[in-house]
Amino acid sequence: MTVGAPARAWTHRHLLDVDTLSRPEIERVLDLADEMREARETRAYRSLLDLETVALAFYEASTRTRVSFELAAKALGATVVDLAVERSSAGKGESLVDTLRTLRRVGATIVVLRHASAGAPYLAARETDLSIVNGGDGTHAHPTQALLDALTLREELGLLDGRLLAIVGDVAHSRVARSNIHALTTLGARVRVAGPPAWVAGFEQWAGVEVASSLPAALEGADAVMTLRVQSERGAVDGVGSLAAYVRDWRLDEERMSLAKPGAPILHPGPTNEGVELTAALANGPRSRIGRQVEHGVTVRMAVLALVAGVA
Amino acid sequence: MTVGAPARAWTHRHLLDVDTLSRPEIERVLDLADEMREARETRAYRSLLDLETVALAFYEASTRTRVSFELAAKALGATVVDLAVERSSAGKGESLVDTLRTLRRVGATIVVLRHASAGAPYLAARETDLSIVNGGDGTHAHPTQALLDALTLREELGLLDGRLLAIVGDVAHSRVARSNIHALTTLGARVRVAGPPAWVAGFEQWAGVEVASSLPAALEGADAVMTLRVQSERGAVDGVGSLAAYVRDWRLDEERMSLAKPGAPILHPGPTNEGVELTAALANGPRSRIGRQVEHGVTVRMAVLALVAGVA
Amino acid sequence: MTVGAPARAWTHRHLLDVDTLSRPEIERVLDLADEMREARETRAYRSLLDLETVALAFYEASTRTRVSFELAAKALGATVVDLAVERSSAGKGESLVDTLRTLRRVGATIVVLRHASAGAPYLAARETDLSIVNGGDGTHAHPTQALLDALTLREELGLLDGRLLAIVGDVAHSRVARSNIHALTTLGARVRVAGPPAWVAGFEQWAGVEVASSLPAALEGADAVMTLRVQSERGAVDGVGSLAAYVRDWRLDEERMSLAKPGAPILHPGPTNEGVELTAALANGPRSRIGRQVEHGVTVRMAVLALVAGVA
Repeated sequence: MTVGAPARAWTHRHLLDVDTLSRPEIERVLDLADEMREARETRAYRSLLDLETVALAFYEASTRTRVSFELAAKALGATVVDLAVERSSAGKGESLVDTLRTLRRVGATIVVLRHASAGAPYLAARETDLSIVNGGDGTHAHPTQALLDALTLREELGLLDGRLLAIVGDVAHSRVARSNIHALTTLGARVRVAGPPAWVAGFEQWAGVEVASSLPAALEGADAVMTLRVQSERGAVDGVGSLAAYVRDWRLDEERMSLAKPGAPILHPGPTNEGVELTAALANGPRSRIGRQVEHGVTVRMAVLALVAGVA
Repeated sequence: MTVGAPARAWTHRHLLDVDTLSRPEIERVLDLADEMREARETRAYRSLLDLETVALAFYEASTRTRVSFELAAKALGATVVDLAVERSSAGKGESLVDTLRTLRRVGATIVVLRHASAGAPYLAARETDLSIVNGGDGTHAHPTQALLDALTLREELGLLDGRLLAIVGDVAHSRVARSNIHALTTLGARVRVAGPPAWVAGFEQWAGVEVASSLPAALEGADAVMTLRVQSERGAVDGVGSLAAYVRDWRLDEERMSLAKPGAPILHPGPTNEGVELTAALANGPRSRIGRQVEHGVTVRMAVLALVAGVA
Repeated sequence: MTVGAPARAWTHRHLLDVDTLSRPEIERVLDLADEMREARETRAYRSLLDLETVALAFYEASTRTRVSFELAAKALGATVVDLAVERSSAGKGESLVDTLRTLRRVGATIVVLRHASAGAPYLAARETDLSIVNGGDGTHAHPTQALLDALTLREELGLLDGRLLAIVGDVAHSRVARSNIHALTTLGARVRVAGPPAWVAGFEQWAGVEVASSLPAALEGADAVMTLRVQSERGAVDGVGSLAAYVRDWRLDEERMSLAKPGAPILHPGPTNEGVELTAALANGPRSRIGRQVEHGVTVRMAVLALVAGVA
């Protein structure tokens, strides 16, 4: 069975990053995700991946991404197997490539790989005969997150040409930000990044990206705002000083959001630290699309799995 | 598809405790569990929960309860996803409510929640749009355990009106005992609790419950006996002295059981410490219904899942 | 549904070791595995184990064996449940037999058991009403590994009568070697074992087995070579001195392999330590059948599950 709009070719066996996807290709994923949303209700495609075995190889822990991929694969009828790295010899020094080759030999056809090392999915794609879907690699890329963010923004704003997304926080170490910049600029949007200087250094050189020097400057006129998860320990934030200073300078609140366009949606890749990246009122308020992002996560991943399997 | 006896309405979206169930409602669960026992053989209801996604969120480890719910859900055709808390960001400080909301967004419709905090399932039911089934919350409640115990007793004794169940051990800290008292007194039975004074304090005030001051006094004329798991470490039992003293005063053996009604069945929520709560001979003898309880666990949980899903 | 060649009776409810299998029985497994390889493509037997619930009880971590059994069971339509020992009360002192009885009571019909104690599967078979498949017990046996090795060798060499397999490494502590010796000698092959003296002591007394005193003596004229995984820590190898000395004396390389028959296949139960047991060039070269072994692992396990379930 092959589903989805005809004629627009999809030629990728892997999804390693969004930076190799053209605008029509990204739009194809988003259109198919919209179709999957309906199909999930009607069970129309419940046997679409009947012949596929999807292995979940999460070398970093995750709730939402793992469960999201697992339910996406199951909704399409794939056989799913969880490597459960911490329980396996993969956790004890077997090389990534050896583990993945073993998965291929036992019948896996698609591997969703999350790994702390940037580039691990590229290695996997090169050294094995599997379809590799990158579930996040180090600080490098998180393509399905960027695609679900793009879907969320498109649902809110329509065509993204000329729209302005502000991304606030630790952009430098964020695979989410990096993949979003690629996806959104490809779709015609502009991206403004903002955060403590160490967290935005170098981004002024990216095409389509501007660096704002303060939170008000970042929010001014933004069509949408994304704030990134802060990793903090004992009140300090890596490389940028105290948590209190971060909150004072960079936390989204109602007043600061008034600088953005009226009704500008707020996104966050989750899980949120309420009170740190944004106030609880904003996280749970009418502008928040954080829950909607999670919903789109499943349908975008259904679309991606169908596409790399060559059945859509 | 809707199955089971018509006309007797079931109005609960959750199963948080048994204390809110009426006698007809408890009987409805037990009748449906009997029906599920047959259906499991014939596969009659293997697609009953086809549209449901059951998430297992066990914040406390468990073999029998997790596997029992998992097989119950799968026997009815539900999609099952295991949160595997220890592998997820849920284990790293994400709030319970945030985790459950994420599960809802990715498509879970029913969550089986086991949690060390009494009341966690109530919080979950209040703060999310999920059907919540309590798989045990702290020392508070374990409703499916009480229902499977009631089914086991009904199978042995028929109608429970006027019957006397003795519960021996750490009643005060036992969610199993607490839920059993609710279920059994609702079904017309009397409950007698017994154990070291610190473990039965206050229960004389519960309607339908009496406190016995010794094991012989507890067993005298009992229609059935349940003994609870003892948590012991290095020979001491929490709050009540030595393990040896506990065994001397409170362990069930053949001789002591002769005080109960002839053939009175013995129940235990498992896993047993043979030689501590009861002798190995009793645990594995003809009066033991410990294995039968485990069997009923699956069918009771099939019934509960079907009921909260609104298809029975 | 019953599949496979008619008439050749299979009478075993368990697979505890290969030492109780006759030559026709081993051949029956291998023939059925060949059939399963095709059936896996065509999905011919996707409902064969529809009525079975296979529980995975791995008390030792494993990637390939656990995933291999899981996919074998799922390919035949069984319900699969993973005990996940490290997350369960089984990890906290509940006895193996109690845990397995619980699995039986919740509906498991077949248990795949891996355990550090030699003989654990025999205990399980004796004390429960389950079909037990040994997934490896201590240093005793690993029957499905021996069967997949036999299938790999048969595919390469045809009938094994009179063929010579060299097994190199820690034979004494290897359940893989022990089960292979049984299976291969039953199929008419000869086995030559070789390694540091402490690792091959006593094997000269086994029927059909000879002990070689050096690697060249072991390889001379061999039809196939299997090398076993070395457990090394900090450069020392248990009981036999330095890792460097092991590599010098016992590592397979191209030159040494020239003593074996031309094109003699190389097997390894995995995961390999490339550069220790054999060179990377050999492990990944044309003689290596290491990947093929993994592939056969799934089809052999499909065959075994069907046979112990009584449907083939």
